[in-house]
Amino acid sequence: MNDPVEHPACPAFVLVRPQMGENIGAAARAMWNFGLDRMRIVAPRDGWPNPNATAMASGAGRLLDEAQLSDDVATSVGDCSYVFATTARARDLTKPVFSPEAAMRLAAERIAAGQRVAVLFGPERAGLENEDIARANAIISVPVNPQFASLNLAQCVLLVGYEWMRATGEVTHESTEMAGTEWAETLEVEHLAHHYQDRLEQAGFFFPEHKAQSMKTNLRNMWSRMPLTRADVQMMHGVLRQMVRWKMRDD
Amino acid sequence: MNDPVEHPACPAFVLVRPQMGENIGAAARAMWNFGLDRMRIVAPRDGWPNPNATAMASGAGRLLDEAQLSDDVATSVGDCSYVFATTARARDLTKPVFSPEAAMRLAAERIAAGQRVAVLFGPERAGLENEDIARANAIISVPVNPQFASLNLAQCVLLVGYEWMRATGEVTHESTEMAGTEWAETLEVEHLAHHYQDRLEQAGFFFPEHKAQSMKTNLRNMWSRMPLTRADVQMMHGVLRQMVRWKMRDD
Repeated sequence: MNDPVEHPACPAFVLVRPQMGENIGAAARAMWNFGLDRMRIVAPRDGWPNPNATAMASGAGRLLDEAQLSDDVATSVGDCSYVFATTARARDLTKPVFSPEAAMRLAAERIAAGQRVAVLFGPERAGLENEDIARANAIISVPVNPQFASLNLAQCVLLVGYEWMRATGEVTHESTEMAGTEWAETLEVEHLAHHYQDRLEQAGFFFPEHKAQSMKTNLRNMWSRMPLTRADVQMMHGVLRQMVRWKMRDD
Repeated sequence: MNDPVEHPACPAFVLVRPQMGENIGAAARAMWNFGLDRMRIVAPRDGWPNPNATAMASGAGRLLDEAQLSDDVATSVGDCSYVFATTARARDLTKPVFSPEAAMRLAAERIAAGQRVAVLFGPERAGLENEDIARANAIISVPVNPQFASLNLAQCVLLVGYEWMRATGEVTHESTEMAGTEWAETLEVEHLAHHYQDRLEQAGFFFPEHKAQSMKTNLRNMWSRMPLTRADVQMMHGVLRQMVRWKMRDD
Protein backbone atom coordinates (compact mmCIF):
# COMPACT_ATOMS: atom_id res chain seq x y z
CA MET A 1 0.00 0.00 0.00
CA ASN A 2 2.21 2.83 1.21
CA ASP A 3 5.80 2.83 0.12
CA PRO A 4 8.59 3.44 2.61
CA VAL A 5 9.06 7.02 1.50
CA GLU A 6 5.52 7.91 2.41
CA HIS A 7 5.54 5.91 5.64
CA PRO A 8 8.93 6.65 7.10
CA ALA A 9 10.16 3.98 9.44
CA CYS A 10 11.27 6.38 12.13
CA PRO A 11 9.73 9.15 14.22
CA ALA A 12 10.04 12.77 13.15
CA PHE A 13 12.07 14.87 15.60
CA VAL A 14 10.56 18.34 15.75
CA LEU A 15 12.69 21.25 16.97
CA VAL A 16 10.28 23.86 18.27
CA ARG A 17 11.46 27.49 18.01
CA PRO A 18 15.17 26.58 18.15
CA GLN A 19 17.46 29.54 18.76
CA MET A 20 21.09 28.91 17.79
CA GLY A 21 21.85 27.48 14.36
CA GLU A 22 24.72 25.53 15.91
CA ASN A 23 22.27 23.65 18.09
CA ILE A 24 20.12 22.72 15.10
CA GLY A 25 23.21 21.35 13.38
CA ALA A 26 24.28 19.47 16.51
CA ALA A 27 20.79 18.01 16.83
CA ALA A 28 21.01 16.77 13.23
CA ARG A 29 24.30 15.04 14.00
CA ALA A 30 22.89 13.53 17.18
CA MET A 31 19.90 12.16 15.24
CA TRP A 32 21.91 10.70 12.41
CA ASN A 33 24.15 8.85 14.89
CA PHE A 34 21.12 6.70 15.56
CA GLY A 35 19.83 6.49 12.00
CA LEU A 36 17.09 9.08 12.49
CA ASP A 37 16.75 11.34 9.46
CA ARG A 38 13.31 12.96 9.68
CA MET A 39 13.79 16.44 11.11
CA ARG A 40 11.10 19.08 11.33
CA ILE A 41 11.64 22.65 12.45
CA VAL A 42 9.06 25.08 13.81
CA ALA A 43 9.69 28.84 13.64
CA PRO A 44 13.50 28.89 14.01
CA ARG A 45 14.54 32.17 15.64
CA ASP A 46 17.15 33.10 13.03
CA GLY A 47 15.23 32.07 9.92
CA TRP A 48 15.93 29.22 7.55
CA PRO A 49 18.21 28.02 6.02
CA ASN A 50 20.81 28.87 8.62
CA PRO A 51 24.51 28.74 7.65
CA ASN A 52 25.59 28.08 11.25
CA ALA A 53 23.38 25.02 11.33
CA THR A 54 24.86 23.75 8.07
CA ALA A 55 28.43 24.29 9.26
CA MET A 56 27.77 22.38 12.48
CA ALA A 57 25.88 19.50 10.88
CA SER A 58 28.83 18.28 8.82
CA GLY A 59 28.07 14.77 7.68
CA ALA A 60 24.42 15.10 8.63
CA GLY A 61 23.63 18.04 6.34
CA ARG A 62 21.08 16.02 4.41
CA LEU A 63 18.77 16.14 7.45
CA LEU A 64 18.78 19.93 7.29
CA ASP A 65 18.24 20.00 3.51
CA GLU A 66 15.25 17.74 3.90
CA ALA A 67 13.91 19.29 7.11
CA GLN A 68 10.26 20.22 6.99
CA LEU A 69 9.75 23.83 8.06
CA SER A 70 6.53 25.09 9.68
CA ASP A 71 5.27 28.20 11.41
CA ASP A 72 3.61 26.43 14.28
CA VAL A 73 3.50 23.12 16.10
CA ALA A 74 -0.03 22.29 15.00
CA THR A 75 0.93 22.45 11.32
CA SER A 76 4.20 20.65 11.84
CA VAL A 77 2.68 17.55 13.41
CA GLY A 78 -0.64 17.70 11.58
CA ASP A 79 -0.06 14.41 9.75
CA CYS A 80 1.06 12.48 12.83
CA SER A 81 -1.19 10.29 14.90
CA TYR A 82 0.95 10.25 18.03
CA VAL A 83 3.06 13.08 19.41
CA PHE A 84 5.46 13.06 22.34
CA ALA A 85 6.68 16.23 24.08
CA THR A 86 10.04 16.17 25.84
CA THR A 87 10.20 18.13 29.05
CA ALA A 88 12.54 18.54 31.97
CA ARG A 89 10.22 20.14 34.49
CA ALA A 90 7.07 18.54 35.78
CA ARG A 91 3.94 20.16 34.42
CA ASP A 92 0.45 20.60 35.70
CA LEU A 93 -1.03 19.03 32.61
CA THR A 94 -2.56 15.62 33.06
CA LYS A 95 -0.84 13.48 30.48
CA PRO A 96 0.94 10.13 30.43
CA VAL A 97 4.65 10.43 31.24
CA PHE A 98 7.10 7.96 29.71
CA SER A 99 10.77 7.32 30.18
CA PRO A 100 12.73 7.71 26.91
CA GLU A 101 12.96 3.93 26.76
CA ALA A 102 9.25 3.26 27.16
CA ALA A 103 8.41 6.11 24.78
CA MET A 104 10.60 4.84 21.98
CA ARG A 105 9.27 1.30 22.41
CA LEU A 106 5.78 2.66 22.01
CA ALA A 107 6.90 4.74 19.02
CA ALA A 108 8.39 1.66 17.38
CA GLU A 109 5.17 -0.28 17.87
CA ARG A 110 3.04 2.47 16.43
CA ILE A 111 5.34 3.01 13.48
CA ALA A 112 5.38 -0.72 12.79
CA ALA A 113 1.60 -0.47 12.66
CA GLY A 114 1.87 2.21 9.95
CA GLN A 115 1.35 5.31 12.09
CA ARG A 116 3.31 8.55 11.99
CA VAL A 117 4.94 9.56 15.26
CA ALA A 118 6.65 12.82 16.23
CA VAL A 119 8.75 13.97 19.18
CA LEU A 120 8.77 17.66 20.14
CA PHE A 121 11.92 19.30 21.54
CA GLY A 122 11.63 22.79 23.02
CA PRO A 123 13.84 25.83 22.55
CA GLU A 124 17.21 25.79 24.26
CA ARG A 125 16.53 27.90 27.28
CA ALA A 126 12.90 27.74 28.16
CA GLY A 127 11.78 24.36 26.84
CA LEU A 128 8.33 23.73 25.45
CA GLU A 129 5.43 25.89 26.49
CA ASN A 130 2.27 24.43 27.95
CA GLU A 131 0.53 25.38 24.72
CA ASP A 132 2.86 23.04 22.84
CA ILE A 133 2.60 20.27 25.37
CA ALA A 134 -1.18 20.45 25.30
CA ARG A 135 -0.94 19.34 21.65
CA ALA A 136 1.01 16.19 22.52
CA ASN A 137 -0.41 12.81 23.40
CA ALA A 138 2.24 12.06 25.99
CA ILE A 139 5.31 13.43 27.71
CA ILE A 140 8.86 12.07 27.65
CA SER A 141 10.72 12.84 30.82
CA VAL A 142 14.46 12.19 30.81
CA PRO A 143 15.62 10.98 34.22
CA VAL A 144 18.33 13.34 35.47
CA ASN A 145 19.94 14.33 38.73
CA PRO A 146 17.30 16.48 40.42
CA GLN A 147 20.09 18.74 41.70
CA PHE A 148 21.49 19.31 38.23
CA ALA A 149 19.38 18.99 35.10
CA SER A 150 21.36 20.69 32.37
CA LEU A 151 20.87 18.71 29.19
CA ASN A 152 21.24 20.84 26.11
CA LEU A 153 19.08 20.44 23.02
CA ALA A 154 21.41 18.10 21.13
CA GLN A 155 21.95 15.98 24.26
CA CYS A 156 18.24 15.58 24.75
CA VAL A 157 17.90 14.60 21.09
CA LEU A 158 20.82 12.24 21.55
CA LEU A 159 19.30 10.35 24.48
CA VAL A 160 15.91 9.92 22.84
CA GLY A 161 17.61 8.88 19.58
CA TYR A 162 19.72 6.37 21.46
CA GLU A 163 16.58 4.83 22.93
CA TRP A 164 15.06 4.74 19.46
CA MET A 165 18.00 2.68 18.26
CA ARG A 166 17.75 0.41 21.30
CA ALA A 167 14.00 -0.04 20.82
CA THR A 168 14.22 -0.90 17.16
CA GLY A 169 17.02 -3.35 17.69
CA GLU A 170 14.74 -5.28 20.01
CA VAL A 171 11.26 -4.86 18.66
CA THR A 172 9.97 -8.27 17.79
CA HIS A 173 6.34 -8.05 18.68
CA GLU A 174 3.66 -5.96 17.19
CA SER A 175 0.91 -4.44 19.22
CA THR A 176 -2.30 -6.14 18.19
CA GLU A 177 -4.36 -3.85 20.32
CA MET A 178 -6.96 -2.31 18.07
CA ALA A 179 -5.14 -3.45 14.95
CA GLY A 180 -6.63 -1.90 11.85
CA THR A 181 -8.05 1.07 13.73
CA GLU A 182 -7.94 4.31 11.81
CA TRP A 183 -6.51 6.67 14.37
CA ALA A 184 -7.20 10.35 13.98
CA GLU A 185 -4.28 12.39 12.74
CA THR A 186 -3.11 15.33 14.78
CA LEU A 187 -4.51 17.85 12.33
CA GLU A 188 -7.94 16.27 12.64
CA VAL A 189 -7.74 16.52 16.41
CA GLU A 190 -6.60 20.11 16.00
CA HIS A 191 -9.71 20.91 13.94
CA LEU A 192 -11.90 19.22 16.49
CA ALA A 193 -10.32 21.23 19.28
CA HIS A 194 -10.87 24.46 17.35
CA HIS A 195 -14.44 23.55 16.61
CA TYR A 196 -15.18 23.04 20.29
CA GLN A 197 -13.25 26.07 21.43
CA ASP A 198 -14.99 28.37 18.92
CA ARG A 199 -18.51 27.19 19.65
CA LEU A 200 -17.95 27.14 23.40
CA GLU A 201 -16.59 30.65 23.21
CA GLN A 202 -19.77 31.66 21.42
CA ALA A 203 -21.83 29.88 24.03
CA GLY A 204 -20.05 31.68 26.88
CA PHE A 205 -18.29 28.62 28.32
CA PHE A 206 -14.94 30.24 29.07
CA PHE A 207 -15.97 32.21 32.09
CA PRO A 208 -14.87 33.93 34.27
CA GLU A 209 -12.41 35.85 32.13
CA HIS A 210 -9.35 35.22 34.30
CA LYS A 211 -9.85 31.48 34.06
CA ALA A 212 -10.57 31.42 30.34
CA GLN A 213 -7.01 30.66 29.19
CA SER A 214 -6.47 27.78 31.57
CA MET A 215 -9.89 26.35 30.72
CA LYS A 216 -8.92 26.42 27.06
CA THR A 217 -5.57 24.77 27.74
CA ASN A 218 -7.21 22.05 29.82
CA LEU A 219 -9.76 21.35 27.13
CA ARG A 220 -7.09 21.32 24.42
CA ASN A 221 -4.97 19.02 26.54
CA MET A 222 -7.81 16.60 26.97
CA TRP A 223 -8.38 16.18 23.24
CA SER A 224 -4.74 15.29 22.68
CA ARG A 225 -4.68 12.87 25.56
CA MET A 226 -7.61 10.85 24.25
CA PRO A 227 -6.92 7.94 21.88
CA LEU A 228 -9.35 9.25 19.29
CA THR A 229 -10.19 7.36 16.14
CA ARG A 230 -11.34 9.09 12.97
CA ALA A 231 -14.85 7.88 13.72
CA ASP A 232 -14.68 9.39 17.21
CA VAL A 233 -13.64 12.72 15.78
CA GLN A 234 -16.51 12.68 13.31
CA MET A 235 -18.94 11.79 16.06
CA MET A 236 -17.72 14.57 18.34
CA HIS A 237 -18.04 17.09 15.51
CA GLY A 238 -21.56 15.77 14.96
CA VAL A 239 -22.44 16.14 18.63
CA LEU A 240 -21.42 19.77 18.61
CA ARG A 241 -23.04 20.60 15.29
CA GLN A 242 -26.28 19.12 16.54
CA MET A 243 -26.19 21.23 19.69
CA VAL A 244 -25.74 24.31 17.54
CA ARG A 245 -28.59 23.29 15.23
CA TRP A 246 -30.75 22.79 18.32
CA LYS A 247 -29.83 26.25 19.54
CA MET A 248 -30.87 27.75 16.23
CA ARG A 249 -34.17 25.88 16.12
CA ASP A 250 -37.30 27.23 17.77
CA ASP A 251 -38.64 24.64 20.15
CA MET B 1 35.57 -1.37 56.38
CA ASN B 2 35.59 1.64 54.22
CA ASP B 3 33.26 4.51 54.79
CA PRO B 4 31.07 5.82 51.96
CA VAL B 5 33.43 8.66 51.17
CA GLU B 6 36.27 6.26 50.47
CA HIS B 7 34.07 3.81 48.63
CA PRO B 8 32.12 6.01 46.30
CA ALA B 9 28.89 4.47 45.15
CA CYS B 10 29.57 5.25 41.51
CA PRO B 11 32.18 4.41 38.90
CA ALA B 12 35.04 6.79 38.18
CA PHE B 13 34.94 8.26 34.68
CA VAL B 14 38.49 8.63 33.39
CA LEU B 15 39.24 11.11 30.61
CA VAL B 16 42.38 9.88 28.90
CA ARG B 17 44.57 12.58 27.29
CA PRO B 18 41.67 14.98 26.69
CA GLN B 19 42.50 17.88 24.39
CA MET B 20 40.12 20.82 24.66
CA GLY B 21 39.35 22.22 28.09
CA GLU B 22 35.79 22.88 26.92
CA ASN B 23 35.28 19.18 26.40
CA ILE B 24 36.49 18.38 29.89
CA GLY B 25 34.00 20.88 31.28
CA ALA B 26 31.21 19.49 29.11
CA ALA B 27 32.03 15.97 30.27
CA ALA B 28 31.76 17.11 33.89
CA ARG B 29 28.32 18.56 33.20
CA ALA B 30 27.24 15.39 31.40
CA MET B 31 28.36 13.28 34.38
CA TRP B 32 26.69 15.39 37.02
CA ASN B 33 23.38 15.21 35.12
CA PHE B 34 23.33 11.58 36.16
CA GLY B 35 24.71 11.99 39.63
CA LEU B 36 28.23 10.86 38.74
CA ASP B 37 30.87 12.93 40.49
CA ARG B 38 34.10 10.92 40.39
CA MET B 39 36.20 12.26 37.54
CA ARG B 40 39.78 11.29 36.83
CA ILE B 41 41.98 12.88 34.20
CA VAL B 42 45.06 11.39 32.54
CA ALA B 43 47.65 13.69 30.94
CA PRO B 44 45.41 16.51 29.71
CA ARG B 45 46.99 18.13 26.65
CA ASP B 46 46.76 21.70 27.93
CA GLY B 47 47.78 21.08 31.53
CA TRP B 48 45.72 21.32 34.68
CA PRO B 49 43.79 23.19 35.98
CA ASN B 50 42.35 24.51 32.76
CA PRO B 51 40.31 27.74 32.84
CA ASN B 52 38.34 26.73 29.72
CA ALA B 53 37.24 23.58 31.47
CA THR B 54 36.16 25.55 34.53
CA ALA B 55 34.19 28.05 32.43
CA MET B 56 32.35 25.29 30.60
CA ALA B 57 31.59 23.19 33.66
CA SER B 58 29.41 25.80 35.32
CA GLY B 59 27.35 24.10 37.99
CA ALA B 60 29.53 20.99 37.85
CA GLY B 61 32.81 22.70 38.76
CA ARG B 62 33.15 20.62 41.90
CA LEU B 63 33.90 17.59 39.74
CA LEU B 64 36.90 19.40 38.25
CA ASP B 65 38.12 20.62 41.63
CA GLU B 66 38.02 17.09 42.96
CA ALA B 67 39.27 15.38 39.78
CA GLN B 68 42.18 13.02 40.33
CA LEU B 69 45.04 13.82 37.97
CA SER B 70 47.50 11.17 36.72
CA ASP B 71 50.25 10.89 34.14
CA ASP B 72 49.16 7.57 32.75
CA VAL B 73 46.22 5.18 32.62
CA ALA B 74 47.89 2.51 34.72
CA THR B 75 48.33 4.90 37.64
CA SER B 76 44.90 6.42 37.24
CA VAL B 77 43.00 3.16 37.55
CA GLY B 78 45.48 1.42 39.84
CA ASP B 79 43.00 1.19 42.70
CA CYS B 80 40.13 -0.15 40.60
CA SER B 81 39.22 -3.79 40.28
CA TYR B 82 37.26 -3.53 37.07
CA VAL B 83 37.91 -1.17 34.17
CA PHE B 84 35.82 -0.59 31.07
CA ALA B 85 37.17 1.08 27.92
CA THR B 86 34.75 2.90 25.65
CA THR B 87 35.41 2.58 21.97
CA ALA B 88 33.66 3.37 18.73
CA ARG B 89 35.65 1.23 16.34
CA ALA B 90 35.97 -2.52 16.62
CA ARG B 91 39.39 -3.59 17.86
CA ASP B 92 41.51 -6.62 17.32
CA LEU B 93 41.84 -7.14 21.02
CA THR B 94 40.10 -10.15 22.43
CA LYS B 95 38.01 -8.76 25.21
CA PRO B 96 34.39 -8.91 26.32
CA VAL B 97 32.25 -6.25 24.64
CA PHE B 98 29.26 -4.83 26.49
CA SER B 99 26.49 -2.46 25.53
CA PRO B 100 26.40 0.64 27.75
CA GLU B 101 23.35 -0.83 29.47
CA ALA B 102 24.93 -4.21 30.24
CA ALA B 103 28.18 -2.54 31.29
CA MET B 104 26.52 -0.21 33.78
CA ARG B 105 24.47 -3.06 35.23
CA LEU B 106 27.67 -4.98 35.78
CA ALA B 107 29.31 -1.87 37.24
CA ALA B 108 26.40 -1.44 39.65
CA GLU B 109 26.71 -5.05 40.80
CA ARG B 110 30.44 -4.79 41.35
CA ILE B 111 30.17 -1.47 43.16
CA ALA B 112 27.41 -2.85 45.34
CA ALA B 113 29.84 -5.63 46.23
CA GLY B 114 32.35 -3.01 47.37
CA GLN B 115 34.60 -2.90 44.30
CA ARG B 116 35.97 0.15 42.54
CA VAL B 117 35.03 0.46 38.88
CA ALA B 118 36.36 2.85 36.24
CA VAL B 119 35.35 3.74 32.70
CA LEU B 120 37.98 5.05 30.27
CA PHE B 121 37.11 7.64 27.64
CA GLY B 122 39.64 8.40 24.90
CA PRO B 123 40.83 11.71 23.49
CA GLU B 124 38.42 13.59 21.24
CA ARG B 125 39.77 12.72 17.85
CA ALA B 126 41.54 9.41 17.97
CA GLY B 127 39.86 7.60 20.81
CA LEU B 128 41.70 5.24 23.12
CA GLU B 129 44.85 3.55 21.94
CA ASN B 130 45.24 -0.20 22.03
CA GLU B 131 47.74 0.28 24.87
CA ASP B 132 44.98 1.83 26.96
CA ILE B 133 42.39 -0.73 26.00
CA ALA B 134 44.76 -3.53 26.88
CA ARG B 135 44.55 -2.27 30.48
CA ALA B 136 40.79 -2.62 30.58
CA ASN B 137 38.84 -5.69 31.58
CA ALA B 138 36.10 -5.11 29.04
CA ILE B 139 34.98 -2.84 26.25
CA ILE B 140 31.87 -0.70 26.11
CA SER B 141 30.64 -0.29 22.56
CA VAL B 142 27.95 2.34 21.99
CA PRO B 143 25.53 1.24 19.27
CA VAL B 144 25.54 3.88 16.55
CA ASN B 145 24.64 4.20 12.88
CA PRO B 146 27.47 2.38 11.10
CA GLN B 147 27.32 5.05 8.39
CA PHE B 148 27.74 7.89 10.85
CA ALA B 149 29.44 7.45 14.21
CA SER B 150 30.25 10.94 15.41
CA LEU B 151 29.71 11.03 19.15
CA ASN B 152 31.87 13.62 20.84
CA LEU B 153 33.52 13.09 24.22
CA ALA B 154 30.76 14.64 26.32
CA GLN B 155 28.07 12.76 24.38
CA CYS B 156 29.82 9.46 24.97
CA VAL B 157 30.10 10.31 28.67
CA LEU B 158 26.43 11.32 28.61
CA LEU B 159 25.20 8.00 27.21
CA VAL B 160 27.22 5.88 29.62
CA GLY B 161 26.17 8.13 32.51
CA TYR B 162 22.54 7.81 31.45
CA GLU B 163 22.85 4.03 31.57
CA TRP B 164 24.44 4.30 35.00
CA MET B 165 21.40 6.18 36.23
CA ARG B 166 19.09 3.65 34.61
CA ALA B 167 20.98 0.77 36.16
CA THR B 168 20.91 2.21 39.64
CA GLY B 169 18.01 4.57 39.83
CA GLU B 170 14.45 4.15 40.74
CA VAL B 171 14.01 5.82 37.37
CA THR B 172 14.43 2.75 35.23
CA HIS B 173 10.76 1.98 35.34
CA GLU B 174 8.77 1.80 32.21
CA SER B 175 6.47 4.68 32.76
CA THR B 176 5.12 6.52 35.71
CA GLU B 177 1.98 6.75 33.72
CA MET B 178 -0.05 9.57 35.19
CA ALA B 179 0.73 8.70 38.76
CA GLY B 180 -1.59 10.45 41.16
CA THR B 181 -4.27 11.01 38.56
CA GLU B 182 -7.81 10.78 39.80
CA TRP B 183 -9.39 8.54 37.24
CA ALA B 184 -13.11 8.71 36.77
CA GLU B 185 -14.97 5.79 38.23
CA THR B 186 -17.20 3.72 36.02
CA LEU B 187 -20.34 5.12 37.54
CA GLU B 188 -19.19 8.66 36.79
CA VAL B 189 -18.56 7.74 33.18
CA GLU B 190 -21.98 6.13 33.09
CA HIS B 191 -23.60 9.38 34.29
CA LEU B 192 -21.66 11.32 31.70
CA ALA B 193 -22.80 8.96 28.96
CA HIS B 194 -26.42 9.32 30.08
CA HIS B 195 -26.14 13.07 30.24
CA TYR B 196 -24.93 13.22 26.64
CA GLN B 197 -27.38 10.66 25.37
CA ASP B 198 -30.36 12.41 26.98
CA ARG B 199 -29.50 15.87 25.78
CA LEU B 200 -28.55 14.70 22.32
CA GLU B 201 -31.84 12.86 22.09
CA GLN B 202 -33.59 16.10 22.97
CA ALA B 203 -31.52 17.94 20.37
CA GLY B 204 -32.41 15.41 17.67
CA PHE B 205 -28.93 13.95 17.23
CA PHE B 206 -29.94 10.28 16.89
CA PHE B 207 -31.30 10.46 13.39
CA PRO B 208 -32.34 8.73 11.16
CA GLU B 209 -34.40 6.43 13.33
CA HIS B 210 -32.96 3.15 12.04
CA LYS B 211 -29.41 4.28 12.88
CA ALA B 212 -30.28 5.65 16.31
CA GLN B 213 -29.38 2.53 18.27
CA SER B 214 -25.98 2.04 16.67
CA MET B 215 -25.19 5.74 17.09
CA LYS B 216 -25.97 5.42 20.78
CA THR B 217 -23.82 2.33 21.08
CA ASN B 218 -20.89 4.01 19.32
CA LEU B 219 -21.14 7.04 21.55
CA ARG B 220 -21.40 4.91 24.68
CA ASN B 221 -18.45 2.83 23.56
CA MET B 222 -16.32 5.91 23.01
CA TRP B 223 -16.83 7.20 26.56
CA SER B 224 -15.70 3.90 27.99
CA ARG B 225 -12.71 3.64 25.73
CA MET B 226 -11.36 7.06 26.72
CA PRO B 227 -8.98 7.31 29.69
CA LEU B 228 -11.11 9.95 31.41
CA THR B 229 -10.07 11.67 34.61
CA ARG B 230 -12.55 13.10 37.07
CA ALA B 231 -11.62 16.56 35.83
CA ASP B 232 -12.33 15.51 32.23
CA VAL B 233 -15.74 14.22 33.21
CA GLN B 234 -16.57 17.47 34.98
CA MET B 235 -15.39 19.46 31.98
CA MET B 236 -17.45 17.41 29.55
CA HIS B 237 -20.54 17.85 31.72
CA GLY B 238 -19.80 21.56 31.74
CA VAL B 239 -19.47 21.68 27.98
CA LEU B 240 -22.87 20.12 27.53
CA ARG B 241 -24.57 22.20 30.22
CA GLN B 242 -23.25 25.32 28.61
CA MET B 243 -24.60 24.32 25.19
CA VAL B 244 -28.00 23.78 26.80
CA ARG B 245 -27.84 27.16 28.57
CA TRP B 246 -26.94 28.75 25.27
CA LYS B 247 -29.94 27.10 23.64
CA MET B 248 -32.22 28.49 26.34
CA ARG B 249 -30.82 31.99 26.09
CA ASP B 250 -32.21 34.48 23.62
CA ASP B 251 -29.34 35.69 21.46
